[in-house]
Amino acid sequence: MSKPVKLSNASDYEAFLDKYDTFLIDCDGVIWLENIVIPNLREALSLLRKKGKNLLFVSNNSAKSRKGYKKKFEKLNIEIYDGEIFGSAYASAYYLKNIVKFPSDKKVYVVGNVGITEELESEGIRYAGAAEDVKFDSTDWTFANIKQDPEVGAVLCGFDININYLKYAKAYTYLRSNPGCLFLLTNDDSTFPASGSTFPGGGAIAAPLITALDRNPDAVLGKPNKPMLDCIVQKLSLNPERTCMIGDRLSTDILFGINGNLGTLLVLTGVTEEKDILAENARIIPDYYISSLGDIATLNT
Amino acid sequence: MSKPVKLSNASDYEAFLDKYDTFLIDCDGVIWLENIVIPNLREALSLLRKKGKNLLFVSNNSAKSRKGYKKKFEKLNIEIYDGEIFGSAYASAYYLKNIVKFPSDKKVYVVGNVGITEELESEGIRYAGAAEDVKFDSTDWTFANIKQDPEVGAVLCGFDININYLKYAKAYTYLRSNPGCLFLLTNDDSTFPASGSTFPGGGAIAAPLITALDRNPDAVLGKPNKPMLDCIVQKLSLNPERTCMIGDRLSTDILFGINGNLGTLLVLTGVTEEKDILAENARIIPDYYISSLGDIATLNT
Repeated sequence: MSKPVKLSNASDYEAFLDKYDTFLIDCDGVIWLENIVIPNLREALSLLRKKGKNLLFVSNNSAKSRKGYKKKFEKLNIEIYDGEIFGSAYASAYYLKNIVKFPSDKKVYVVGNVGITEELESEGIRYAGAAEDVKFDSTDWTFANIKQDPEVGAVLCGFDININYLKYAKAYTYLRSNPGCLFLLTNDDSTFPASGSTFPGGGAIAAPLITALDRNPDAVLGKPNKPMLDCIVQKLSLNPERTCMIGDRLSTDILFGINGNLGTLLVLTGVTEEKDILAENARIIPDYYISSLGDIATLNT
Repeated sequence: MSKPVKLSNASDYEAFLDKYDTFLIDCDGVIWLENIVIPNLREALSLLRKKGKNLLFVSNNSAKSRKGYKKKFEKLNIEIYDGEIFGSAYASAYYLKNIVKFPSDKKVYVVGNVGITEELESEGIRYAGAAEDVKFDSTDWTFANIKQDPEVGAVLCGFDININYLKYAKAYTYLRSNPGCLFLLTNDDSTFPASGSTFPGGGAIAAPLITALDRNPDAVLGKPNKPMLDCIVQKLSLNPERTCMIGDRLSTDILFGINGNLGTLLVLTGVTEEKDILAENARIIPDYYISSLGDIATLNT
């Protein structure tokens, strides 16, 4: 397999940037680490804008809607415009509305938090679950209490800090009993990094449903899965040949780019290390890699 | 594959009973259906006792300790003696104490309810989790809040009606960070029947840990897995040749008996139907089957 090209000086950066019109950019590990902006990142994004590039920030994290992400960009003082954010919660709402044409007389049962429900609202999709099932007292509850809602035509499961048995039992019941009920995940990341460690992610939250139903989801809207790219390509009328995916994770970001025939740039500010892509047995290899996306800001000077 | 023998009259029953000294009997679907005793079941058990048979009630349900099961038998007016109950919660405690000799200076982190903690207490095993982590308010919580308890040397996960993200995050952290931390499940049933339907079971509750850790449990203490039989054989000094497993589920009860070289009797009062074992492609076949364990009570008359 061919080795990735390392970008390390101004002429490398120029040649790389000339190849693409649009950059899909992962957030955590590329733009910021939790609440700390990667050095020179603001300047690097400013350079891309000055060169007339289209930017789209593409994140698997479904905890935030586009509105929620915008707040985070603004709080971290990073320039951001409407239409530049594409999180997995929005991808899920977009997919339901524009790809599967979810019927307006049906509802989505949501295992997840406000990031998901805000995006469903933005697309005019009716939903149940989410905040309404956060409070669950098992002491006065029996299995017979679960009321079937025949209007539920899809279950959408994302990361849910308020997961409980009631949500699992309801989601399971709809998927098992409601004819044609769709089973969608915002993303299938088994873990995510936080506080210097990792914790169970959206894919782990969905695992009880997959296990109990013995059924895989109909679609997963996060990277590296194709439905998310289908949404992006449709919405932005992208030319994949002139588009590059920039990310820090091989199994999500880089694989997403490879699967979609996009260019790929790995940054080393997140979870992947240089040795991971240079190893003899490396399986997922980006076209390019760079120490940090902040490095291209040197072109500004 | 040989066909199972159907027991349907007094001489069938006599010949069957003569082959075994000990009967391991599943509860739900054999003795009772939720809170209704199967017809003639009390009389059938009375007959077995009169013939001097040893009885052991073996259940995967970890929601009840032996004490909890005893109450249920008494409430349903079914004769029961100390030492006749072997649920997966007790099997887990027995396994920790007698098979792996769990160190007394270590604790078990419990994802589960009172059935499990009562049995750990009965065996003098220290634990954390369970009731102490039922209350979880995500609003003032951060991932940095998770305190490592270096004394946790095992995670034991069973069905947990009060499952929440805090328990998953803690269990995951111990299994990932504490050297040698054991990963045990009381059972791996993906679903269980209730109120005329099914719901996510103990195996589903454990799925986020298996997914996030990308690790299978070190032992599963419920049927059809061998560790449960190891505990029963050690505790009762059983002779497998003179022991018969009686149950209503092929994939748990009957497979458990087959795996342990026990005799097997399927009853048709639970989830399995006659066509399931007579089909050409049937894979798990009991030695014997009977409409209901209550039928053998006719020998009393």
